[in-house]
Amino acid sequence: MMKPALPKGTRDFSPPEMARRLFLFGVLREAFETFGFLPLETPSMENLSTLTGKYGDEGDQLIFKILNSGDFFSAAGGKETLDSKTLLPLISEKALRYDLTVPFARFVVMNRHLITFPFRRFQIQPVWRADRPQKGRYREFYQCDADIIGTHSLLAEADLIMLADEVFSNLGLKVCMKLNNRKILSGLLEYHGLSEYLTPLCVAIDKLDKIGEEGVLQEIKNRIPIASAEALVKGLISLGNSSSFDHDYVNKVYALAGKHPMLDEGISEMSKLFSCAESAELRLLRIEFDPTLARGLNHYTGAILEIKCDEPDFSYSGSIGGGGRYDNLTGIFGVDGLSGVGLSFGADRIYDVMLERGLFPEGLESVTTALVINFGTATEVISLRVLRDLRREGISAEMYPDAAKMKKQLGYADALKIPFAVIIGEEEAAAGKVTIKNMLSGEQKTVDLEETGNTIQDWI
Amino acid sequence: MMKPALPKGTRDFSPPEMARRLFLFGVLREAFETFGFLPLETPSMENLSTLTGKYGDEGDQLIFKILNSGDFFSAAGGKETLDSKTLLPLISEKALRYDLTVPFARFVVMNRHLITFPFRRFQIQPVWRADRPQKGRYREFYQCDADIIGTHSLLAEADLIMLADEVFSNLGLKVCMKLNNRKILSGLLEYHGLSEYLTPLCVAIDKLDKIGEEGVLQEIKNRIPIASAEALVKGLISLGNSSSFDHDYVNKVYALAGKHPMLDEGISEMSKLFSCAESAELRLLRIEFDPTLARGLNHYTGAILEIKCDEPDFSYSGSIGGGGRYDNLTGIFGVDGLSGVGLSFGADRIYDVMLERGLFPEGLESVTTALVINFGTATEVISLRVLRDLRREGISAEMYPDAAKMKKQLGYADALKIPFAVIIGEEEAAAGKVTIKNMLSGEQKTVDLEETGNTIQDWI
Repeated sequence: MMKPALPKGTRDFSPPEMARRLFLFGVLREAFETFGFLPLETPSMENLSTLTGKYGDEGDQLIFKILNSGDFFSAAGGKETLDSKTLLPLISEKALRYDLTVPFARFVVMNRHLITFPFRRFQIQPVWRADRPQKGRYREFYQCDADIIGTHSLLAEADLIMLADEVFSNLGLKVCMKLNNRKILSGLLEYHGLSEYLTPLCVAIDKLDKIGEEGVLQEIKNRIPIASAEALVKGLISLGNSSSFDHDYVNKVYALAGKHPMLDEGISEMSKLFSCAESAELRLLRIEFDPTLARGLNHYTGAILEIKCDEPDFSYSGSIGGGGRYDNLTGIFGVDGLSGVGLSFGADRIYDVMLERGLFPEGLESVTTALVINFGTATEVISLRVLRDLRREGISAEMYPDAAKMKKQLGYADALKIPFAVIIGEEEAAAGKVTIKNMLSGEQKTVDLEETGNTIQDWI
Repeated sequence: MMKPALPKGTRDFSPPEMARRLFLFGVLREAFETFGFLPLETPSMENLSTLTGKYGDEGDQLIFKILNSGDFFSAAGGKETLDSKTLLPLISEKALRYDLTVPFARFVVMNRHLITFPFRRFQIQPVWRADRPQKGRYREFYQCDADIIGTHSLLAEADLIMLADEVFSNLGLKVCMKLNNRKILSGLLEYHGLSEYLTPLCVAIDKLDKIGEEGVLQEIKNRIPIASAEALVKGLISLGNSSSFDHDYVNKVYALAGKHPMLDEGISEMSKLFSCAESAELRLLRIEFDPTLARGLNHYTGAILEIKCDEPDFSYSGSIGGGGRYDNLTGIFGVDGLSGVGLSFGADRIYDVMLERGLFPEGLESVTTALVINFGTATEVISLRVLRDLRREGISAEMYPDAAKMKKQLGYADALKIPFAVIIGEEEAAAGKVTIKNMLSGEQKTVDLEETGNTIQDWI
């Protein structure tokens, strides 16, 4: 018999882990709902044609494909000479979703005549990526996305900043949200006649954290045959991050170029966003302008957001959330003109950081409040009745299924961190009484049977 | 550009549907927690070897297999002459879970030294089956399972009956739980020397609803070459269902056979279960003994449970939940001796029945309580502050992102069933006032800005 194992990069979540995860997802969902985002879920599987070509070549490789059912090989024509690339579309037409954004765009396109815009939706679901597993990177993980689609208003961006502040303040985790605007970089490039190099430039700048300024400049030199590119990137990096976006800073940006419509727009959007954020009086979230924030070369066209942990001495430096504005999300499915902005919370990474920093509340694991001790058939009916009444009074309770030794039953309560044992031995039963034992303090109280629930509730 | 579509048998859940689903899952989770079940989640993917051979040949066909990543065909040896059966294990080593029971058994085996038994766990997750889609049958659907593993006590079965009563009473849905015990059928067969025919007998009896008594008896005649089998099944069917399991009924069962240890055990277990259920004073759930309940030929060894809708004139006659006792669940992974009993709630079917019968509470769809009307930049800061304060007071609120015409903004609130509009025009802003409009009654109140939240809370 084979010893069972888990697929690489996947995880079981045991009850204590689940208790913490449910807490985390609860905080996220509550924040989404408080902010007026509506719930949406899409299927785990999408048609392969819905997903391919949306995440770049590398992304396509990481999509988990589902084998067609039945005699897939005969149905594919049973070709004798084949390679993976030819065979794939013949034997697979479905795949697991890779993120929540593309399925959301698909949903909006398919239901656009039923949706009231602007459409604020949240979605909390797992996604799957055939990535090489490593610390903080799993093959199945949850994304928790909030998007506002159907408006160009910057208030949407501001709302997402306030949402992130709400989430992390409720979690008790200090974070920094880095902000940039794609229009600033695009404007600078246009001004200098470097527009066609947006892609390699973004790719290079994105590696700043990993390979440092020297490395980035070297890559620019290798990839872009125009000297002004290197100077521009050097200037961009030397701007530095800034917790304000005031006149002085704006002047420093303009020192890299003159007036230019797109640059002006990016700068004015950023100023407005910083002033909105200021008037919102954020709590555990601080914002920081980062002129080198690019987040790959995806669909972002305006604001770019990225959330990092801002606590001292944390071991995880990656992002725990991110997003931005995409002016034409549904364009990938042939419906133009819907601008949106979204923010994705990386629940699994947030979980890891919170666990490391001990930020989960105490007592999450005590799911059950009372264990009714089993003394055998003589007192079974009365014990079951007390059990039933406790539950109907909203107190989570269970009865030990066997009339095992008291020590064993109390040991079970200890192991599961059940705070109260409800004891109805023959003596108690005859007198219509119950003894309630506080498992933490060891203290006991004997009360009337009907008072079991009230006594526990007062004692908690 | 291809028009996007959903894979066959899968569904999007729009915000109104999600609101109802979240309500349903909330009721289920709350009942599980009140009954002291601990949360567990397992990965969507399992190794193919974990799943195959556990659901019969037909089940194996319905498992969704995941294609290996990368150049799967070369990695498989790029064989030139192949068929699906030979190719499958070479190009797929993972699959989507088919139910929650086998992954649970795998979890218990892998973590048995860390688990405190008896282990009460609940699990609410989707499962996938490549079944032909039809009414009430989807390719992705949720199972909501509660299992108690590590005890032979019948109190575990009794607890699941009480759990089902709790769930359906809280949902307001009348249901009937059919009960049987595999030991009764097995005992009868052993007594008559028919043990070897348990499989075809179960398969035939299971079709009683579909093909009627005549059909079942014909199938028995075709498959079992012993005349006494037909007589026994005829007798079993003629016993009829019964809402009690009293002396009279027991005598009728014994009329089909004499005393026999396994039969005696089954009958005594059933008597005890009925008496437990009676003392529990069930509410919307009634129980019924059904001597023909077999639920396929799976791993059940004792009690068998099946839940059906019990409302008048409902269109869906299938089961909306079911389960039973399995004396050796973890035996499939080489670890013997752990007996368990479980009950699975079919959330998607329960949803369909509740929707048809109008059992979801009113107002689930109003996720947002207040819409702050947007009057443009002049009042933006003050409006954002009111918005922020509403949310911090726990009132779900959003601000319309654009300074559109009042009529359009109020139309948005109407469409989304947002009950209150918060109006801070320039006049109100200058006076430090806010006008709150009740969208249902049309009534308006003008109060101090700081009173916005309280006024809405009092008005709800």
